[in-house]
Amino acid sequence: MRIMNRTVSSDVKQHVGKSVRIEGWLHKKRLLGGIAFINVRDRRGLTQVVVEDKDEVEKLRGLQIGTVLAVEGEVTEEARAPGGAELHKPVLTVLVPVTDEPPIEIDKPISHKHEHLDTLFEYRVLNVRNLQEQKIFKIRADLNRYIREYLYDKEFVEIQTPKLLAEATEGGAEVFKLDYFGKEATLAQSPQFYKQIMVGAFERVFEIGPAFRAEPSATTRHMSELTMLDIEMGFVKDHDEVLDLVGDMTIRVLQRVYKEHEADLKSLNAPQLVLSESVPKFTVAEIHELYSKANKTDTTKEKDLIPDEERWICEYAKKKHGSELVYATHFPIEAMKFYHQANPEDDQTVLWGDLLFRGLEIATVPLREYHYEKLVAQMKDAGLNVTHQGFKYYLQAFKYGLPQHGGCGFGIDRLVEKTIGLGNVKEATLFPRDINRLTP
Amino acid sequence: MRIMNRTVSSDVKQHVGKSVRIEGWLHKKRLLGGIAFINVRDRRGLTQVVVEDKDEVEKLRGLQIGTVLAVEGEVTEEARAPGGAELHKPVLTVLVPVTDEPPIEIDKPISHKHEHLDTLFEYRVLNVRNLQEQKIFKIRADLNRYIREYLYDKEFVEIQTPKLLAEATEGGAEVFKLDYFGKEATLAQSPQFYKQIMVGAFERVFEIGPAFRAEPSATTRHMSELTMLDIEMGFVKDHDEVLDLVGDMTIRVLQRVYKEHEADLKSLNAPQLVLSESVPKFTVAEIHELYSKANKTDTTKEKDLIPDEERWICEYAKKKHGSELVYATHFPIEAMKFYHQANPEDDQTVLWGDLLFRGLEIATVPLREYHYEKLVAQMKDAGLNVTHQGFKYYLQAFKYGLPQHGGCGFGIDRLVEKTIGLGNVKEATLFPRDINRLTP
Repeated sequence: MRIMNRTVSSDVKQHVGKSVRIEGWLHKKRLLGGIAFINVRDRRGLTQVVVEDKDEVEKLRGLQIGTVLAVEGEVTEEARAPGGAELHKPVLTVLVPVTDEPPIEIDKPISHKHEHLDTLFEYRVLNVRNLQEQKIFKIRADLNRYIREYLYDKEFVEIQTPKLLAEATEGGAEVFKLDYFGKEATLAQSPQFYKQIMVGAFERVFEIGPAFRAEPSATTRHMSELTMLDIEMGFVKDHDEVLDLVGDMTIRVLQRVYKEHEADLKSLNAPQLVLSESVPKFTVAEIHELYSKANKTDTTKEKDLIPDEERWICEYAKKKHGSELVYATHFPIEAMKFYHQANPEDDQTVLWGDLLFRGLEIATVPLREYHYEKLVAQMKDAGLNVTHQGFKYYLQAFKYGLPQHGGCGFGIDRLVEKTIGLGNVKEATLFPRDINRLTP
Repeated sequence: MRIMNRTVSSDVKQHVGKSVRIEGWLHKKRLLGGIAFINVRDRRGLTQVVVEDKDEVEKLRGLQIGTVLAVEGEVTEEARAPGGAELHKPVLTVLVPVTDEPPIEIDKPISHKHEHLDTLFEYRVLNVRNLQEQKIFKIRADLNRYIREYLYDKEFVEIQTPKLLAEATEGGAEVFKLDYFGKEATLAQSPQFYKQIMVGAFERVFEIGPAFRAEPSATTRHMSELTMLDIEMGFVKDHDEVLDLVGDMTIRVLQRVYKEHEADLKSLNAPQLVLSESVPKFTVAEIHELYSKANKTDTTKEKDLIPDEERWICEYAKKKHGSELVYATHFPIEAMKFYHQANPEDDQTVLWGDLLFRGLEIATVPLREYHYEKLVAQMKDAGLNVTHQGFKYYLQAFKYGLPQHGGCGFGIDRLVEKTIGLGNVKEATLFPRDINRLTP
C-alpha cells in the first residue's frame, strides 16, 4: 500500500474536501464524552484533529504529549481551528509512542520570570517544543540571516578564524585555558586580531561565531560562551563612517525583523520599535551633563557611564530623537585598550563608541590605531611584551601596511534579548553557559 | 580642501577622461627610466598608475609593497592595464608608509606544493594579500553563503549550539579538556546531540561552526579545529531521503560556485566540474566487488573501504555515471556508532553513507536510531553509562518523542579543498590548527 505524501499544517486548508496525511507530535489531547480533540504539531504549526471513531480514540489511550503520529483524514473548514481547517474521520498511526508524562507542559511556555529561569534552562530540551518559545529562536535565526545579507550587500567577506590560540592576547583573567597536546592553549575571547589582519586582504570582513569568556559571575548580561558578530572595515575616513555603518545595519535589520515577524513579536509582548533614520550620537561628557541636569545630581566627575546613565540616555534618545538606538561616544582615555585609537583632537578621550539599545550596550564600535610604531608604543605603555609570539603575527599586518580601520564586537545574544524584550541574555540563547551551568 | 570620494578599482574605467581618487595598497612598483609604473590594490582588484612627474616619483622612494596610498589622477583607457584603464598625471598621498621589505613577495602566490606548505602557513598574514590566494577564501565565503541559502529555502532553521560541554559525550581520546571555573569541561567535537535535540523543535536544523578534535597526527585531511556544517532533519521516510537532500544541496552549491566563480576557478587550476542530476550510490559491498574485479584483487573480505577504493570509486562514478560526487552506503555494522540506525533488512550493515568528492570523504550522512529503548540498549552495548549527566538531556529528547531523522556532518574545509583542487585541507583554511601549529 502506498503511503500518502505528507502535508504540512499550514497547507492543510488548501485541501478542503479532500484527504491528507499529516505527521507530527501529539501536542494537546482533550477527551469530551468519547470524542478526542487533538492538536498535532509540525514545523509550521498545529493541526486540529477530531477523533470520533471508538477504535481510533482507543489508539490514543495512555499516549502522552510528544507521541509522534501520522494522521490521515478529511479536511473540513473550521474557523476556530488553527489554520482555519481541521481533520475529520481520521485514521491514526502511532510512529513513536510516548508513555511517560513529560516533566513540563509542552503547550504552555515556561515563565521567563527571573525566579523561573533555572527551570526554563533545565528543561530547555523539551521547552523548545513550545510554539511560543520557538518564536524566540526563529527570530534569532532570522536576525543572523538579515545581518549577513546586509553585510554581503556591502561587500563584506565572511571569515572563520581560529578559536584555539597559542596564548591570551587581549590579556586578562577571563581566558579559558586548555591542554593542547601537552602545551597550553587558550580559547579566543574574540576574533579581534584576526579580523584586523584580514582587513589587509579584503578591506571588509565579518564573522559570526562563538567567543569564550571566563566570566566568574552570573549576571543577566554575561555568559561564558556567547555569539559575537565581529565586523572590521578598512579605508574609513573617520570614526563616524564606522559608527554609521554599524548603526545603519542595526536599524535595517531591526526594521526588517519587526516587519517580517510582526505577529510573533506582538505575541511575545515585544515593545513597539521606535527608530529614526540614523542613530543619534552623544559623547560620554554630554551624557554626564544631560543626565546631571535632568536628575539633579552630578556625574560630570565620573569617567565612564554609570549604569543608570545607560538606561537614561536610551529613554532620552527615544523621547527626544525618536530612536531606541543611541551611541555613546568619546569614552574617557582610561577605558582605552592598546589597539584603540586615541582621539587626536582631545587627549582625554578615545575614539570608541558604545551602541545602546533599550538600556543595554549591544556593541562596542571603536576605531583602531593603525600606525605600526604608535601601536607598538601603546602596547608597551600597556605593559605588554611585544616580542611575544601571540603578538608577532598581529604586528606583521601593521608593519606591512594597514589602512585606517574600525569595526565592532556585536553581541548577538544581547540583540535577540532586547529585540524581543527579554530580561536576561540567557533567555535568548538555546543552551546558555555560565559559572553555574554547563548543561544541557 | 574637500577630499574627492574614493573610486574602487573596478569602477575606474567608468570615469575615462575624468579625475578620480583611488585608495589602496602599493602592490607592485616598476621603475623605467625615471617613470614609475605602480599597481594599487583594493578590495576589488588592481589599478595601474603611470607616475611621470619627478616629484611624484620621488614620493615613492624607499617605499615598500604594502604602503597605503591615495592617488588622484586622470583616467585613460589602456587595454593592457587591469580593468582596461589606468591613471595618468597622478598626485600621490602616502597614508601609511611601509619602509621594511616584506618577507615574502605579495604579488606572487606562495607555492602550494607540499614542501612549501609550512612557509605558506607561517606567512599567511601577508600571503592573504595575494590576489590569487584571496580567491580561495572568497570561494570559501560564497560556498558557505550558497549552502545557507539552499537550506533556508528548505525551511531549515540555523542554530548555534554550545561548544563548551560538561564532558565528552561522543567519547574518545580526541577530546580537548579545559579548566572551567575549577571543574573539567570539554570542547565539542560536533553539535551531534544538540542538533538531534533540536529536531524535536524545528524538524530541520543546521549549524555552521567550529568543531574541535584532539587529532594527535598531522595529515592532509585532519585539523584540530575544523569548520563543520551540521544538518539534521526529521520525519524522513528513509535513509535515501537524507542522502538525496544532502546530495542535491552539494550538487546545487557546486554548480553555483562553478558558474559564479568560473574565471577564478580556472585561474586556480581547479578541475572541470562533472556532475549528474543526482549522486550515484553504491553499497560498500558493491564497491568491494567492482574494485576487486577491476583491479584483479580481492577486497570483499574487507569491512570498511580501503583508501584506494575511495579514490577508485570516485573515478569509476565519474567515468560511468558522469558524477564526481558519489555515495558509499551500507557501511559494515562494525563501523556503527551508538546513535546510528542499524539496517533493519540486514544486520551486517548500518544506515550510514559517506559522500565522496574527488577521492575524499567530505560528509558522513547517517540515519539515526530514534526509538528511546533501542537507543538506550545500543548505548549500553557500546559500554556507555546512560545515567551520566552528559546523556541525560540527550535521552530526554527521545523519551518524549523524536521522529525518524538523519543528517550529516559535512567538512567545510574539505569541500573548499576539493572544489578548488587543493591537496591539503589546511590550504583551504585561513589559520589552520594541528598538533604542530597553533599560530598565526
